[in-house]
Amino acid sequence: MKPKVAFICGGGQFPLVAARAAQQAGREVFLLGLRGIASRDIEQFPHVWLGIGQLGQGFRELTSRGIREICLIGGLGRPEFSDLRLDWGGVRRLPEIVKIFGGGDDHVLKGVIGLFEHEGFAIVGVDSFAPELLACEGAMNGLPFPGALAADLEFGRKCLADLSAYDCGQALVVAGRRIIAIEAVEGTDAMLDRVAHLREQGRWRARGATGMLVKGPKSGQDLRVDMPAIGPQTVASAARAGLRGLAVAAGRVLILERAAIAASAEQSGLFLHGFAPETP
Amino acid sequence: MKPKVAFICGGGQFPLVAARAAQQAGREVFLLGLRGIASRDIEQFPHVWLGIGQLGQGFRELTSRGIREICLIGGLGRPEFSDLRLDWGGVRRLPEIVKIFGGGDDHVLKGVIGLFEHEGFAIVGVDSFAPELLACEGAMNGLPFPGALAADLEFGRKCLADLSAYDCGQALVVAGRRIIAIEAVEGTDAMLDRVAHLREQGRWRARGATGMLVKGPKSGQDLRVDMPAIGPQTVASAARAGLRGLAVAAGRVLILERAAIAASAEQSGLFLHGFAPETP
Repeated sequence: MKPKVAFICGGGQFPLVAARAAQQAGREVFLLGLRGIASRDIEQFPHVWLGIGQLGQGFRELTSRGIREICLIGGLGRPEFSDLRLDWGGVRRLPEIVKIFGGGDDHVLKGVIGLFEHEGFAIVGVDSFAPELLACEGAMNGLPFPGALAADLEFGRKCLADLSAYDCGQALVVAGRRIIAIEAVEGTDAMLDRVAHLREQGRWRARGATGMLVKGPKSGQDLRVDMPAIGPQTVASAARAGLRGLAVAAGRVLILERAAIAASAEQSGLFLHGFAPETP
Repeated sequence: MKPKVAFICGGGQFPLVAARAAQQAGREVFLLGLRGIASRDIEQFPHVWLGIGQLGQGFRELTSRGIREICLIGGLGRPEFSDLRLDWGGVRRLPEIVKIFGGGDDHVLKGVIGLFEHEGFAIVGVDSFAPELLACEGAMNGLPFPGALAADLEFGRKCLADLSAYDCGQALVVAGRRIIAIEAVEGTDAMLDRVAHLREQGRWRARGATGMLVKGPKSGQDLRVDMPAIGPQTVASAARAGLRGLAVAAGRVLILERAAIAASAEQSGLFLHGFAPETP
């Protein structure tokens, strides 16, 4: 029998899709919903609600069910230290927790993973049981990647790679070897909305569909717990920004409901291209 | 007698301030206002209006007055090729002009400079006659740069330096070794407004005054024609974003009305610090 898997559930629909995919892959699932963050829909599955600081209880819930594999999934925002409302299990680990709150997102996640691994849990990525949730290589809809944009894609990828050292920049918009926008804290969809706005204002002037979103993980990003993602809003915002398409790292970007999103991109005239991971 | 200097005037108040400073430095000035872009206030000075594509007439206006030094100043936006309405002088230079419209901002400016230099004009920066318009080194108001932020400043500067290779990123906001926002096409003030918005939305959560703007030229940026600048709106936006201050490259960032801006920053509790150019 395949081992049980627990989902520590942040916000949004990803935890539900992932849990369903895990069930379809023959796994028994158990969901720990972060109170005030996870969707109430997790109650469709065996579950328990936890405050974000209730590490002690979390560990007990898992151990008592014989669960050793956990998957952290869904948006967390960035919890503020004062939101943690630590339980005793959390307080015991306070020195580590304090350390976690001193850097970028990547740093926070590495800290959280460390806490779980220290207790003997294995952290698994959603790709280990639901590879169909990831971008595949090449064209994902009927609009092939335009060869003329290859240099722009390379330019954008290199720029993202260089930004990795600063623990930021999962995505950018590039057009004609010009970087139109770079994502930091605002998120991909907000960045695309900015591009749409720049265009409406005439701050970025381009005729017809121009430019593309380039998105992929930062180098060194722990994909088990922090996989970049695109969703229906990403496609809608890219269309509003008047882009030609979306290029995402194959196998390294989550696409919830890939077929539907690929189709809706195509309807908006946007290619959806999975680029191969960099050859070193 | 000091040589005459001509200003090719883009938008905003910078051309006026620069022309006044040049007069105070004993220079005879002549302003070429770009039609639809430059402020009507340039008519306070000896001037002529030109369409952006009327290179031929521009060259004649300068030559007939015996002017060899020119200063390109003020915001241009990014002219669209179809806006150029080329005159015969422009048409003759069409091959070069077409080449100019294929890359980043830096590329456009290099091309424009090349056209002028090819005709024998010398391009001078505003710093050559009005150094008082530039950021100086160290504290520019009564709030000294907090030593605890030195690591953040270094982090932000390095990130900007790495982005230089992509002809973008004149400014960013950094807080606690975390990049909150990076400027691309939107401009510094819009980036700061985004940070204010992220904070209001709770997307970036920080207590009290936190983080700083770091701004300086891209490496290789031609400061004669493309000096980064901050103005009253920058200070207002930084205050709204709840930052602790502004750090700008000394001698490489224009501050229109430096004393007034430094004072208004201080009133908003913001330091205004000029950091020394990088030692190679």
